[in-house]
Amino acid sequence: MSDFDLKSYLQSRRTLVDAALDRFLPPETAPPPVVHRAMRYSVMAGGKRLRPILVIAGAEAVGGHAEVVLPTACALELIHTYSLIHDDLPAMDDDDYRRGQLTSHKVFGEAMAILAGDALLTLAFRLVAENAAHVKDSRVICDVVAEIAGAAGTGGMVGGQVVDIESEGKTVTADTLDYIHTRKTAALIRASLRVGAMLAAARPAALEAISAAGHCLGLAFQIVDDILDVEGSLEELGKTAGSDERKQKATYPAVHGLDASRRRARALLDEAQAALAPLGSAAVPVSALADFIFERRS
Amino acid sequence: MSDFDLKSYLQSRRTLVDAALDRFLPPETAPPPVVHRAMRYSVMAGGKRLRPILVIAGAEAVGGHAEVVLPTACALELIHTYSLIHDDLPAMDDDDYRRGQLTSHKVFGEAMAILAGDALLTLAFRLVAENAAHVKDSRVICDVVAEIAGAAGTGGMVGGQVVDIESEGKTVTADTLDYIHTRKTAALIRASLRVGAMLAAARPAALEAISAAGHCLGLAFQIVDDILDVEGSLEELGKTAGSDERKQKATYPAVHGLDASRRRARALLDEAQAALAPLGSAAVPVSALADFIFERRS
Repeated sequence: MSDFDLKSYLQSRRTLVDAALDRFLPPETAPPPVVHRAMRYSVMAGGKRLRPILVIAGAEAVGGHAEVVLPTACALELIHTYSLIHDDLPAMDDDDYRRGQLTSHKVFGEAMAILAGDALLTLAFRLVAENAAHVKDSRVICDVVAEIAGAAGTGGMVGGQVVDIESEGKTVTADTLDYIHTRKTAALIRASLRVGAMLAAARPAALEAISAAGHCLGLAFQIVDDILDVEGSLEELGKTAGSDERKQKATYPAVHGLDASRRRARALLDEAQAALAPLGSAAVPVSALADFIFERRS
Repeated sequence: MSDFDLKSYLQSRRTLVDAALDRFLPPETAPPPVVHRAMRYSVMAGGKRLRPILVIAGAEAVGGHAEVVLPTACALELIHTYSLIHDDLPAMDDDDYRRGQLTSHKVFGEAMAILAGDALLTLAFRLVAENAAHVKDSRVICDVVAEIAGAAGTGGMVGGQVVDIESEGKTVTADTLDYIHTRKTAALIRASLRVGAMLAAARPAALEAISAAGHCLGLAFQIVDDILDVEGSLEELGKTAGSDERKQKATYPAVHGLDASRRRARALLDEAQAALAPLGSAAVPVSALADFIFERRS
């Protein structure tokens, strides 16, 4: 694993994803232009592209290729972006900044932010459907649609956001915190890895290993996010540090303390790497992403 | 066609759809309960179920059966309902009543209304994917997902809503009005008929006839809706009559006058019935729905 260059891996996959997103999103000039501008404004704000890269890495871990899963990889980024746009709305977290730029509703107004989010979620499923052109067995596309809808719905991301909002200003138990993190963040990250592997026709044992790793990566990612919110600066995060505390959000450091949070994140990432070990060298990129998640500064 | 009893047809198909919606929606007690309550509150408010009935009628028109298309029929109702919840939000049309009851955000708050809408849209695609269990060729499910996402996205429903909001308080041309109506309403109604036919393995010529009829039905439905808003009472519509005028919405009667609106709706419905004629008796329910649309009082 020492030979693996994560930085250039991330760079090359990110370049692929960014080009594909530009291809799949309607042009800004297509009518009605304002909603297409709003969609591109948020998608092209320059996230880490963690979810689409995990789709690709999930496919590669079982012998698949990036090109084959690009539409679905982009779909996961569109769903992530829609969730950020809606989470930032005044009725939800009421955030003015995201990734260092004004949030969608501050630029385009609330109505357009709601609609841009709706449109991104809708387009995501269209991209998955169009991924059928790249696979032999269309049944896998149906499974991928169901998998993503499950992870993004009330059993996953939306459900986590609901409980997150309900818990604001309250003292939450460790169980409630796990509920929120597992659903709000881990579900979609786990699904990203899984659908990549599914599109690449993973065998059941490999898919199980990848699912376990995805769950651990997702939880660890959210714990590190919570830690960064306590420690980070506006410059590094592109959003105001300490905002979770001000909003009295349920976070891992608030419930368990900073040291225990760091230990838990590292343990989860070790667990992910152990789960991936049987897949051998093909899974090295996913394993390396675990270290990246632990060491990231933003 | 004189033997066809539309009333009992609508009743029986509506009963099927209502039972299926109850089966497909998560129970109110499933965690987190509040969002499931919000989803059911709006879906079970008792709409006409026009879109799911059109999915069924579209399948029947080419020899298919209701049971086979029920998940997708329900998906169309969930998408319609999500669009109503989001359209009613304060940032959009700011409506307090819908179908005679308080709108979602008045009961559950804005955050939960946004999330309930997001969840319904997400669940809709899951239902379509699960419809794969009832068809031989999974490719048709991929086509149906793409068709629905196209009709619900910025090239369809969301695009129409964007221009509708942008046009408020402005004088719109007949072209802009057609743009709004075609996308905001007709696109999803046309897609409903089409996906029913697609799931029932319609031949290309039949699908083309159904597509043409669906476009006409959809446009006529919106024109009649505009007419009812001018003429109707709160009791009949379940919402405040004349609300389009107060909000300075672009409507067919405002641009063309009431008489021309009635004539245009009737002409479109005649056109729909002519397009369906080659399909023979199997298409009688769809044809009868055209008369129902023209004569409806709510």
